[in-house]
Amino acid sequence: MDKIWNKYEDIQKELEAVVSFMEKNTKCKDKKIEGSIKELIHSGGKMLRPAFVIISSHFGNYDAEKTRSLASVIELLHMATLVHDDVVDDAKLRRGQETVQSKYGKDYAVYIGDFLFCVCFKILASSATLQSIKIDSNSMSRICLGEIDQLNSRFNSNLSVKSYLNRISGKTAELLSLSLYTGAAESGCSDGLCKQFWKIGHNIGMAFQIIDDILDYVGSNNVVGKAVGKDIKQGIFTVPFIYAANKNRRAFEPYFHKEVFSEEDVRKIIELVNNNGGITSSRELADKYTKKAFNLINRLPENRHKIILKEITEMLLKRTY
Amino acid sequence: MDKIWNKYEDIQKELEAVVSFMEKNTKCKDKKIEGSIKELIHSGGKMLRPAFVIISSHFGNYDAEKTRSLASVIELLHMATLVHDDVVDDAKLRRGQETVQSKYGKDYAVYIGDFLFCVCFKILASSATLQSIKIDSNSMSRICLGEIDQLNSRFNSNLSVKSYLNRISGKTAELLSLSLYTGAAESGCSDGLCKQFWKIGHNIGMAFQIIDDILDYVGSNNVVGKAVGKDIKQGIFTVPFIYAANKNRRAFEPYFHKEVFSEEDVRKIIELVNNNGGITSSRELADKYTKKAFNLINRLPENRHKIILKEITEMLLKRTY
Repeated sequence: MDKIWNKYEDIQKELEAVVSFMEKNTKCKDKKIEGSIKELIHSGGKMLRPAFVIISSHFGNYDAEKTRSLASVIELLHMATLVHDDVVDDAKLRRGQETVQSKYGKDYAVYIGDFLFCVCFKILASSATLQSIKIDSNSMSRICLGEIDQLNSRFNSNLSVKSYLNRISGKTAELLSLSLYTGAAESGCSDGLCKQFWKIGHNIGMAFQIIDDILDYVGSNNVVGKAVGKDIKQGIFTVPFIYAANKNRRAFEPYFHKEVFSEEDVRKIIELVNNNGGITSSRELADKYTKKAFNLINRLPENRHKIILKEITEMLLKRTY
Repeated sequence: MDKIWNKYEDIQKELEAVVSFMEKNTKCKDKKIEGSIKELIHSGGKMLRPAFVIISSHFGNYDAEKTRSLASVIELLHMATLVHDDVVDDAKLRRGQETVQSKYGKDYAVYIGDFLFCVCFKILASSATLQSIKIDSNSMSRICLGEIDQLNSRFNSNLSVKSYLNRISGKTAELLSLSLYTGAAESGCSDGLCKQFWKIGHNIGMAFQIIDDILDYVGSNNVVGKAVGKDIKQGIFTVPFIYAANKNRRAFEPYFHKEVFSEEDVRKIIELVNNNGGITSSRELADKYTKKAFNLINRLPENRHKIILKEITEMLLKRTY
């Protein structure tokens, strides 16, 4: 369990129950499959999404068992998308550990992701309402479309900020919105409160992703565990690039029509993005979403879980960048 | 629309409505995605599974709209599994047409499959009961496990007939069972009748897959559109191989420890399987399931759709082999 939860003993306990529930629901005759899913469950993710479900559940009529199921579904959906993302990205490592596709092969990873999707809907059918299932599958399809959009945009330098925001809204913000929304909705919060939680998740997700994308241009491998220039190398142009390239198209011209970038290209692009205000403008954009998130959190009913959500969001969005 | 439905005008019309429904529910802003799914929908499959949903629905209180949704879900689930199977098999062609992964890339195909899964659960949440969703997701996870089992068994010559039957039960029979079961259950048929339909689907599926696997040893590329020796080359040992190898382990010994087969190996294995009773025993096994299927169909209540199911099953299981 990530150490960020040490401070919140009850959340930590509930997350441990989520882990047990996920293990129980992914048991299967084939021990290799069971083992590889167990590795995923214990791979050291922050468990942010299930924690969000738990936190927002406490704003309504909290039902421990139901919340545990829903939180598990969200984390399993997240795991399924990560496994498939790693297939697509050809990723060797995730959270410092070998990925499913690198360890067991791409083929295996495709089916493990599918199997996890099925487990999610099986749990949902036992513990959620039809309305929740509809919202969950809607969100999941938006996440897929966000990923496809990112694929289709590779090495397309004609991106607008708007299309970038649209893409990360699906790719990242959607599942965070869904987490906070689901907990609230299934514990009987008012429509207004549910929507407020949805927006909080959206703004946190947008800020989080923009910060993550900035780190591709300024981070150091040791600090954030993410290699600088990784996105650029894959032809994924994020908002720092978009801002800088729109400001100084002439400087970026040589890179607009390439379909492969050398190490030297990547180094040069990072320099150009930094020199043309790409980082500054992106930080301003992240700040805008961060502020919106905190404004919305501040307007939540007063209780201990509001304070937890605020502290976790601070920790999440105040990363060094 | 496949010509097998020409004889059954009402089923044909209902299947056309299923096609329109699938198109409507996979519309999306990104025209490339929409287009590639449209190609899948019109790729010339037999539409057997949605037809099974329609046929068994007519044994209860037939509701055209509900049946159309459920039939579409089953066909979309089938499409999603095919897209992911093609990724895993590295398949260039399916039904004589270029596969999604060959045309648009593996990455794209992974997400298109995921997107189709999501659409299925979205439709289910609007048109089915929680009980149906639970059964559907259970079936889907069994299908995934069947596929993973097949992956894990590649180049493993220590297979038993039992483990083979278990694998094809998940991989093929499950979705046919589910099709017939879903139509019956959601139109309010008795539990007994629903179970009978489940068994009919199971026996048709088992016979169908065994016949298909025999064709890997005796078919001709022109007749069945399937290349002989394709499975062997991938290290997939099906029941003709298992029977023959268990009868004459010495003859097969040289192939037990290989992980790659040359064209000459494949030719030799086909010969050995034919000479050691592999085909004869497999035909007997297929006959056993075929007979069971017809016995169960004969015990269905008398109506026009019983006759249709019987004729379709005859057409399906009396392929030249």
